[in-house]
Amino acid sequence: MGLIDDMLNGSQRALSRLITLLENDEEVRQKIIRIIFKYTGNAHIIGFTGPPGVGKSTTVDAVVTELLKRGKRVGIVAVDPSSPFFQGAVLGDRIRMQSNEENENLFIRSLASRGKLGGLSKVTNDVVKLLDAFGMDVIIIETVGTGQSEYEIAKMAHTTVIVLSPGYGDGIQAIKAGILETGDIFIVNKADMDGASKAIADIIGTVEFNFSSNPWTPPVLSAIAKKHEGVQAIVNEFENHYKYLKETNLLENKNKVRIEQELTEHITSWVETNVLNYLGSSGEKQKIIDQIFNKEEDPIAIIDHHIKESMKEIISGNFIKQD
Amino acid sequence: MGLIDDMLNGSQRALSRLITLLENDEEVRQKIIRIIFKYTGNAHIIGFTGPPGVGKSTTVDAVVTELLKRGKRVGIVAVDPSSPFFQGAVLGDRIRMQSNEENENLFIRSLASRGKLGGLSKVTNDVVKLLDAFGMDVIIIETVGTGQSEYEIAKMAHTTVIVLSPGYGDGIQAIKAGILETGDIFIVNKADMDGASKAIADIIGTVEFNFSSNPWTPPVLSAIAKKHEGVQAIVNEFENHYKYLKETNLLENKNKVRIEQELTEHITSWVETNVLNYLGSSGEKQKIIDQIFNKEEDPIAIIDHHIKESMKEIISGNFIKQD
Repeated sequence: MGLIDDMLNGSQRALSRLITLLENDEEVRQKIIRIIFKYTGNAHIIGFTGPPGVGKSTTVDAVVTELLKRGKRVGIVAVDPSSPFFQGAVLGDRIRMQSNEENENLFIRSLASRGKLGGLSKVTNDVVKLLDAFGMDVIIIETVGTGQSEYEIAKMAHTTVIVLSPGYGDGIQAIKAGILETGDIFIVNKADMDGASKAIADIIGTVEFNFSSNPWTPPVLSAIAKKHEGVQAIVNEFENHYKYLKETNLLENKNKVRIEQELTEHITSWVETNVLNYLGSSGEKQKIIDQIFNKEEDPIAIIDHHIKESMKEIISGNFIKQD
Repeated sequence: MGLIDDMLNGSQRALSRLITLLENDEEVRQKIIRIIFKYTGNAHIIGFTGPPGVGKSTTVDAVVTELLKRGKRVGIVAVDPSSPFFQGAVLGDRIRMQSNEENENLFIRSLASRGKLGGLSKVTNDVVKLLDAFGMDVIIIETVGTGQSEYEIAKMAHTTVIVLSPGYGDGIQAIKAGILETGDIFIVNKADMDGASKAIADIIGTVEFNFSSNPWTPPVLSAIAKKHEGVQAIVNEFENHYKYLKETNLLENKNKVRIEQELTEHITSWVETNVLNYLGSSGEKQKIIDQIFNKEEDPIAIIDHHIKESMKEIISGNFIKQD
């Protein structure tokens, strides 16, 4: 595929087309991953998460500007798991940063969950691999909202940054709701707001309490991203954390966890693609649904029977070719 | 299983134990579902969602009190997809409502995502089925946060209620972020706050714009749940919407969509359980991860090969018994 060569030679246009191809066709996706895989493994992957309204996008902007100043090549994957319908918040980000998009050291891609084969985390992982192969030094995964998807994305990143702000009334509630333990670096943005010092003290207290037995105590940094204040310290901490991961062998562990996650995802999507395609195209699926709906037979017996029958067909090669 | 008989005869203790059993053991889960399936299909399933901080729990409390007053039997499944680590927000709810838990017409169960086989939506679906078989008239699924999980849960409910509040600074942002189209009923809680009338007007405008071509235009209701104001109107709309679904045949469609979703989930979990177990217990999994990490071979070829080999073993019955 000439496109992959072009991408490896630095063409952002080729990179962009490859992402689109990979998102839309499983067979093409697999071909791309097979070729680019050996060029990956050099980027520092940083996840940005936190509740909406804390100025996360502004913080990412400021941080990216600083990274570019330091001569880094930066890729951004903006992920909006809450957007199966609209191209909401993240598209906004993209427009916002479009002025930078001509910069050859910066590449931005938005992902919403509409119509993604095998889920958003799989596509995110793929895009990260492409950006890695492209030669990005830092890849930022920016997510909207807090939830299960953030947890999955945290597992993908080497360094997870949690952005909070004093203005976000439920900041502490958001921490309680489960994202805290994924954080390697905490940022309290909008540090010029009323109540900022209390918020910072609260977060430092919570972090120190929760990470007391951890060899890496996450730094809690205050920032005013809009004015680019506190941004250098944040980027310094990226470097400190990456160094820490390398020195402690945790980087290798994290990369292996990513592979394990991909393994699971690939197995799941293999089955979803093959078994569901088979059942759908053979007309069995609608029959099964009607049988269960009419309570003709117990649902699990019906499904088990059909899984096995379709597996046999798929493995024997009667249904689709694979490999 | 005597427990199922006890449950069908009205024992909340048996119901509670069945949920625990079903959550922790796939084989037992399947047995339970097979038996209870024919007793399901009578409950009105209502999903409550919306951003944190809008008073969603208080609203659910008030609504449940009203439903109980009207003689309904109510089940609540409180789902916290953001909580892989903590037993945060939802556990709070549970404690909050414990005073009611002796009420034989009310049953509450919290679900967090820690260690759930096959994902949270599958367990939620199972608990809904149990509550349905138990004879609940109304089953409320309450979720924390906004995200992909909300979308999945919306697909499970017959009626989706979105709770917002004027105080939630990013209320409109949350709507934009994708939950809007899932809403059948909108509640603007805390209607006595500053800016309430503007917030309500905004939401009515957005809803009317987005649902203009829809035969069901979601009502936008204001409420002060803490003072039980506006709650009767909400419960009336539950009844209106359920009636509408029945009259238009949409109820049957929604139930079939649920079955289709379960079909997909069951297939996925069948594979995850069987293939991943097989690879794990044969020691192949760690070998695959190391091979991919060391870039010895391309990852997709390795995984495909192992999926097929393990499928063959599983189907031929060499590895585990199924059925």
